[in-house]
Amino acid sequence: MKYKITEIKQGTVTSPQGFLAGATEAAVKYKGRLDLGILYSEKPCTSAAVFTGNKVKAAPILVSMKNMEKGKVRAILANSGCANACTGDKGLKDANETAGLVAAKLGIPRTQVIVASTGVIGTNMPLKRIEAGIGKIILTKDGGHKLEKAIMTTDTRPKEIAVKVTDSVGQYVIGGIAKGAGMIHPNMATLLGFLTTDASVEISFLRKVLKTAVDNTINMVTIDGDTSTNDMVSIMANGAADTEEITGKNGKNFQEALNYVCQFLARSIAADGEGATKLIEVSIEGAKSATDAKKIARTIAGSSLVKSAIHGNDPNWGRIVAALGRSGAAMEEKYVDVFLQDGPMMRQGSPLPFDKNKLSRKLKTGEVKIRVCLNIGSGKAVAWGCDLSQEYVTINSDYTT
Amino acid sequence: MKYKITEIKQGTVTSPQGFLAGATEAAVKYKGRLDLGILYSEKPCTSAAVFTGNKVKAAPILVSMKNMEKGKVRAILANSGCANACTGDKGLKDANETAGLVAAKLGIPRTQVIVASTGVIGTNMPLKRIEAGIGKIILTKDGGHKLEKAIMTTDTRPKEIAVKVTDSVGQYVIGGIAKGAGMIHPNMATLLGFLTTDASVEISFLRKVLKTAVDNTINMVTIDGDTSTNDMVSIMANGAADTEEITGKNGKNFQEALNYVCQFLARSIAADGEGATKLIEVSIEGAKSATDAKKIARTIAGSSLVKSAIHGNDPNWGRIVAALGRSGAAMEEKYVDVFLQDGPMMRQGSPLPFDKNKLSRKLKTGEVKIRVCLNIGSGKAVAWGCDLSQEYVTINSDYTT
Repeated sequence: MKYKITEIKQGTVTSPQGFLAGATEAAVKYKGRLDLGILYSEKPCTSAAVFTGNKVKAAPILVSMKNMEKGKVRAILANSGCANACTGDKGLKDANETAGLVAAKLGIPRTQVIVASTGVIGTNMPLKRIEAGIGKIILTKDGGHKLEKAIMTTDTRPKEIAVKVTDSVGQYVIGGIAKGAGMIHPNMATLLGFLTTDASVEISFLRKVLKTAVDNTINMVTIDGDTSTNDMVSIMANGAADTEEITGKNGKNFQEALNYVCQFLARSIAADGEGATKLIEVSIEGAKSATDAKKIARTIAGSSLVKSAIHGNDPNWGRIVAALGRSGAAMEEKYVDVFLQDGPMMRQGSPLPFDKNKLSRKLKTGEVKIRVCLNIGSGKAVAWGCDLSQEYVTINSDYTT
Repeated sequence: MKYKITEIKQGTVTSPQGFLAGATEAAVKYKGRLDLGILYSEKPCTSAAVFTGNKVKAAPILVSMKNMEKGKVRAILANSGCANACTGDKGLKDANETAGLVAAKLGIPRTQVIVASTGVIGTNMPLKRIEAGIGKIILTKDGGHKLEKAIMTTDTRPKEIAVKVTDSVGQYVIGGIAKGAGMIHPNMATLLGFLTTDASVEISFLRKVLKTAVDNTINMVTIDGDTSTNDMVSIMANGAADTEEITGKNGKNFQEALNYVCQFLARSIAADGEGATKLIEVSIEGAKSATDAKKIARTIAGSSLVKSAIHGNDPNWGRIVAALGRSGAAMEEKYVDVFLQDGPMMRQGSPLPFDKNKLSRKLKTGEVKIRVCLNIGSGKAVAWGCDLSQEYVTINSDYTT
C-alpha cells in the first residue's frame, strides 16, 4: 500500500485502538480543575521515552527512567500543579508510591507505570489527594481530551493530534498530546508529551524513531531558554491495529508519520508559549553542519531581543545577525543572507534597502518567518519560538505567590 | 606606602591627570542629544582592550582591534545611535575614515585612535554629520561626563567612577565610564567601557590586568543573554602621575584597584539594565571549578524565569535550582544549598519550610541576593543581572521603528 497520512478530526492520544484515558479534579494545587490523569493501554506495549537533559531531575523523571528501562510501560500517571522536583528522598518515595497505586488500580506491575509531573518546583506531592484522585479516575475511549486538560498549566489551549497512516505494514494510528507554555528550552527531551500508536513496533527501533523525531521537532522549540527539570516525551505502541511489526527495515514511513505528529505538537507549543501572540519559525540553510544549523536556529529563536522586536512588529533584523554571531556556529559574515517574511534584509554581509513601514505591517501576523542562509555548507535546521510580550513577565512574576 | 583606595566624588574618565574629553550633538540618529565624543590623552600611552566574542564584529571593532595591536592608543572616538555593524566593506571604510579625522584633529597617527559605536545594527554611519561633529568637539579636563552622556542609548543614568590609589609605586588615579542597558551578555568583553589611568603601566601587564578585571566583573553581567557585535572595554595608561612603572612584580594593588573600578561599572550596568527595577547578585560557592562557578552564576542571573519571579517578589526558588541544573556545570543535587536574601531555601537537596509572605516582602528592595553552595569543590564566582520587567519588552518592541 502506498504511504498516506491523514489527520483525524479531534484526534488525541486515545484515537489509536486499545488506549484509554481519564482525568479528575484532585486539587493538587487548585480546586475545581482537572489536574490528575491516567493514560492506559489495554494490551501490552513496547515503549520508549526521552527525558530532560537538566542535571536536576525531578523525582517522577528518576522513577520513569528506571521503569522505562525494559521498554514495557503501558500506563502513565500525570499531574499538574506540583512538579515534585527538588524534593529529595521524600519526593522519590512519593513518586514510586503513586506509580504503585496506579499499578494496583490497573492490575499491572508497578514497573509498567511511569509518572509525569508539572507545576511548582520544591513542594511535596499532596499524597492523600492524589490517592483519592487515582481512585476516582474513570478510563474511557475518548479520555485523551480530559487527560490533556489535566496536564495544562499556563497553556491557553490544548495540544492534541492523531493521524491515520496507510503503509505497506498495514493501517495504523498515531496520537499525541503535549503541554508546553513556560520553562521551555528542551534539551534531550521536553515538557510533557505522550504519544501512542496501535502499530506494532520493535522496541529498539521505537527508541530510535522517538529520539529522531523529538530531536528535530520538539527539541527545536524554545520559549524562554529555561530547560525544565521535568521534561519527558514518551511513546507506547500496543500493536492493536494488527500491523506487521515495524522495524528498521520497513519503518521509514513510521518515522515520517511520527515526525509529522511531533512537529505539530512542537509548533503548537511554540505558538502557545507563555504570553505569546505569534509563532516564530527560524529556518537555517547552508550552515557548516546540521549541528551548527540547529545551534543557530535555536539561538535566534531564543533571543530576547529578536523576540521583543517581533512582538512590536519592528523589522530590526540586525538582532538576528547578532544572535547568529554569538551562537558558536561557524560563519563568515560576508556570505550571510538574511530574510524576514521572505523579504531580503542582508545579502552577502551587506544591508539591503527595504520599506520599513511595509515590512512592519507584514510582521503583524500570527506567524513570522526568519530565514538565514550561511552559504558555507549544507547544514539545515528549523526551530520554533514565540514573541516575548509584557504578558510573559506578568505570568511569571507571580507564579507561586 | 600602604595600599589605600578611595572613591573620588563625581569621578570620571578624565579624573586621572592628562586626560581630556568632550562631546557634541552630531545628530547621528536623533537631534538634540549628545551622541559623539572623544577621549584623549595629552601624553603617549600604553593601552589595551578586550573585544566582543561575537563572530559578527562591527566595523569599529575590526578597526580598533587592528589599531590596538601595538598598544599605543591615546584617543577614542565614540558614538551612539548607529552601531556600524553588518555594514560590509562600506562600514569598514567609514570607521577608518572617522579614525583618520580624529587623528588629524589631534595631530597624532591614525593608528593611535580607536573607534567605538553603539546603536542600531545594519545602518550606515552619517559620515558628513560625524565629520562636522568631530570638528565641533571641545576637549576639556572635566569632559568625561559629557562623553559618558554621548555613549548612552537606553541607559537611564550615567555609569562613571574614579578612584585615587595610594600604593608602593606612588599615587595614581583610575577612572572609568561605561554604557550598558541592552544586548548585554558579555563574552570576552562587553558593551562600551573606557578606562583611564595616570599610572605608568608596562604594556604586557596592562593587557593581563585588564583581561582579569573584565573577566571577573563586566563579563559576569548579563541582562538579556544577547551578546553585542560592538562590545569593547579599553584602558589607556599615560604615566602622568609619575609613578614607578607598574609590572607583574609590583602590580598586585593595581589589579585590585582596577577590579574595584570594573566591579563598580559592572554593578551599575546590571542595575540599569533595560527595564530593570532591581540589581540581582548571584554568588556561587563550592563548585567543582571557578569555570563551573562562573557558568552557573551567569546561567542563574540570565534565567528569564528567575528574573521574572524576582520582578514580582515571588520567592520561587525552584527556578534557581532548575537554572543551576541546565548550566552544564558539575553538580550533585543532594549536596546543594540555596539561599535567597540570606534565607535558606534548600539544604542538601531538600526544600526547607519558609514564610512566603515575609520573604516576598524582603524581595521588595533594590538589590536581591541569591547564593548557591554546591559543596563539591572550591570554585566560586559572582554574577550580576537584573529583573525582567514588562518595561524591557516595551523598550525592545519598537527600537528601530
